[in-house]
Amino acid sequence: MSSTVNKAVAELIGTYWLVLGGCGSAVLAAAFPEVGIGLVGVSLAFGLTVVTMAYAIGHISGCHLNPAVTVGLWAGGRFDAKDIPVYVIAQVVGAIAAAYTLYVIASGQPGYILEPNGLAVNGVESHSPGGYSMFAGVLIEIVMTCFFLLIIMGSTHSRAPAGFAPLAIGLGLTLIHLISIPVTNTSVNPARSTGPALVVGGLALQQLWIFWVAPIVGAVIGGGVYRWLSPEAGERPDIKGD
Amino acid sequence: MSSTVNKAVAELIGTYWLVLGGCGSAVLAAAFPEVGIGLVGVSLAFGLTVVTMAYAIGHISGCHLNPAVTVGLWAGGRFDAKDIPVYVIAQVVGAIAAAYTLYVIASGQPGYILEPNGLAVNGVESHSPGGYSMFAGVLIEIVMTCFFLLIIMGSTHSRAPAGFAPLAIGLGLTLIHLISIPVTNTSVNPARSTGPALVVGGLALQQLWIFWVAPIVGAVIGGGVYRWLSPEAGERPDIKGD
Amino acid sequence: MSSTVNKAVAELIGTYWLVLGGCGSAVLAAAFPEVGIGLVGVSLAFGLTVVTMAYAIGHISGCHLNPAVTVGLWAGGRFDAKDIPVYVIAQVVGAIAAAYTLYVIASGQPGYILEPNGLAVNGVESHSPGGYSMFAGVLIEIVMTCFFLLIIMGSTHSRAPAGFAPLAIGLGLTLIHLISIPVTNTSVNPARSTGPALVVGGLALQQLWIFWVAPIVGAVIGGGVYRWLSPEAGERPDIKGD
Amino acid sequence: MSSTVNKAVAELIGTYWLVLGGCGSAVLAAAFPEVGIGLVGVSLAFGLTVVTMAYAIGHISGCHLNPAVTVGLWAGGRFDAKDIPVYVIAQVVGAIAAAYTLYVIASGQPGYILEPNGLAVNGVESHSPGGYSMFAGVLIEIVMTCFFLLIIMGSTHSRAPAGFAPLAIGLGLTLIHLISIPVTNTSVNPARSTGPALVVGGLALQQLWIFWVAPIVGAVIGGGVYRWLSPEAGERPDIKGD
Repeated sequence: MSSTVNKAVAELIGTYWLVLGGCGSAVLAAAFPEVGIGLVGVSLAFGLTVVTMAYAIGHISGCHLNPAVTVGLWAGGRFDAKDIPVYVIAQVVGAIAAAYTLYVIASGQPGYILEPNGLAVNGVESHSPGGYSMFAGVLIEIVMTCFFLLIIMGSTHSRAPAGFAPLAIGLGLTLIHLISIPVTNTSVNPARSTGPALVVGGLALQQLWIFWVAPIVGAVIGGGVYRWLSPEAGERPDIKGD
Repeated sequence: MSSTVNKAVAELIGTYWLVLGGCGSAVLAAAFPEVGIGLVGVSLAFGLTVVTMAYAIGHISGCHLNPAVTVGLWAGGRFDAKDIPVYVIAQVVGAIAAAYTLYVIASGQPGYILEPNGLAVNGVESHSPGGYSMFAGVLIEIVMTCFFLLIIMGSTHSRAPAGFAPLAIGLGLTLIHLISIPVTNTSVNPARSTGPALVVGGLALQQLWIFWVAPIVGAVIGGGVYRWLSPEAGERPDIKGD
Repeated sequence: MSSTVNKAVAELIGTYWLVLGGCGSAVLAAAFPEVGIGLVGVSLAFGLTVVTMAYAIGHISGCHLNPAVTVGLWAGGRFDAKDIPVYVIAQVVGAIAAAYTLYVIASGQPGYILEPNGLAVNGVESHSPGGYSMFAGVLIEIVMTCFFLLIIMGSTHSRAPAGFAPLAIGLGLTLIHLISIPVTNTSVNPARSTGPALVVGGLALQQLWIFWVAPIVGAVIGGGVYRWLSPEAGERPDIKGD
Repeated sequence: MSSTVNKAVAELIGTYWLVLGGCGSAVLAAAFPEVGIGLVGVSLAFGLTVVTMAYAIGHISGCHLNPAVTVGLWAGGRFDAKDIPVYVIAQVVGAIAAAYTLYVIASGQPGYILEPNGLAVNGVESHSPGGYSMFAGVLIEIVMTCFFLLIIMGSTHSRAPAGFAPLAIGLGLTLIHLISIPVTNTSVNPARSTGPALVVGGLALQQLWIFWVAPIVGAVIGGGVYRWLSPEAGERPDIKGD
């Protein structure tokens, strides 16, 4: 049985890795001349942060790394409401620390300038990579986070094959990025949005509320729908922190 | 034991995800300037929709998400004929809903126009991405769907390693796309073809019959061949809905 | 216990898939304008043919799909010499059938011409994608096939984790292609080389002996080294045909 | 119980594969005209060397392939100090042999010239792919190796799902490369840095100390932090050499 401190530290470390790895690959490597990793590489990086952490710390905290996931699992009957605040705070602190670390590393390249849409911030309209409307951005964030929760709830269900949930969930996050980076730069994770927005400021910070509201709405729907679709009979077989 | 309603809802949700994720990655991200995900990213996206849903809802409905798979599994002796209609209807409804959702999101980009070959419709000749003939298109759809069924039948066989079937099947769908997108935009799934064709209309709708006939012919061959090659001795160990 | 006929049919089907999928992705999709899958996509495709077939037919024939693997497993003490001929014949027949199928499909594109280095044939010097020498080509084929056998012998060892061998072996083939396509177009498999060479003829056929000799030499070294390094105490836990 | 000789040979072979495969893909295939694998392909290649070897030799030596991993696992209480020298020597010998092999193969292409930053050497400032400062390079190597050890310690923990550690660790190395190639060409592994630096010489050799110090510092932090976070209750379930 891991203590609350250990769970909080695990969530902080894991979310730090998600933001450093995901946003870091976007900032440092996506558009590298000739051989850049592109959106495929960034999508893979976001997903692999979750795959790696879910196997590494899943048995400590459950490896949420995402306030929407924490709230969605509560809506799905899998997480205790009283633990939500400490999880969310740890996630946000980790995300902010990662965004600052990334900024320091990126600044090590001569001529680096922090653009208003730098550090892989999320956004709509002028801050959407493809210039998508707020309506499209809100809609896709709700739908993507809803399915993220369906995947999480389902792959950790007691009747799903044991041990594979970290792959399913991490590769699910990769898939979500493959679809939606052009629209909002893909959040589905309020902590991931908060870290870069705080460092960059400006419009990114003004639009930050979108990436708290839409993912949490989607997550609550996803958690609730799955709970109705396949109620949990017993205990989850893996990546459940205890 | 999941009820028929739960199975149908699971198939509807899963097929919605397959079409929204697969076609969505193609429409929104494949040709994004400089860093687009290309056909590799689209192939990965289609496959990961199946990987994620197979772990999430495999224990509810078996996660077919595809009328050809449903019919092919019947031909392979793994699925009851009386359940085919409800599965196929749920799949087609999910696919249509996804195509409309994708259209709404794509319309959120200023200047978006729905082209006659938009929304990742399947097609041959003028609607084939590489301009391939109808003969080539029909042939590759039959062969690809035949092997898709061999992979599904084999990886869910009671003597195959338990738990890995969702990976094998989903990555099999990625592989099929890596080969055949240039020829037909890759169907192997009548529901996936129907959703976008109904929204786009025109030639896509006129050619839709090809993507019902060819995949189902291939699937029946694949299911039948595997059944002869390695008859099922016992129960399938995973992703079998009950 | 699968019969010899079933094993041969499984090897034929599996090798057909390897050549159709691997070479097919190269011919049809690698250089597709703007969004082509490139060598990453081709590498992934070759590997996934093995991942999918190993889960699908591994319990029938062991899923060698490759004369060098069959001979290397014999050198490693894992395969009976008397079964080598039927396996190799089935593999070569499957590879030839796949090469012809691919030729028919590729011909469905208006203006298609079968080039002397078409259908993803293997080669050195003027038939090496990067113009590499015969020495470099022979050396890399020996080393790559040697490691392919180390991976196969090791991941199917009774002390390796059960069920993961198809992933390790298939992704190993992806890795081998990521390294060596520019040098020889990557063989490590005499059957895979034979199919396209027979259809294309000319220099590809003249150089074919290289892709029988080098892979088999490498495979025997790899099988023998692993046998010394970690002798098999018991039975292999998975993908062993019986 | 594998002998010390067998463990050393396994580490030598495995590190040879890591350097030949990872650096080889970078040198031979990354910038191949039109269809090159880019940094995504190189990242995948490095990771897959570890995935494949961890399944193949994990049960012999634990498959460290990296002096920083060996030292970090000692810091984490998982490895005996007296075995460090033989592991590190075997790793470095394997890496040097691989770098020479790669040089011989690359020389098989007409017109090949060994550049001062050739053979995928690691470096900062003028030898950083993106021209990053020494500070940025040291920082990212420490952070990346720290997280590499967190992943290794966690995924091989007795409470993590058995059998998945090779995937988590190998894909973790892929992720690390997706983030950090532009900064230092990614080391996180003193042996991987030593092989190419010895063959190329010059500035790469002068900067080599960075890629011994930073990864080992990061590894010791990662191993120590994880040990505090989740002390090992029992035996590691997999890829532990014995």
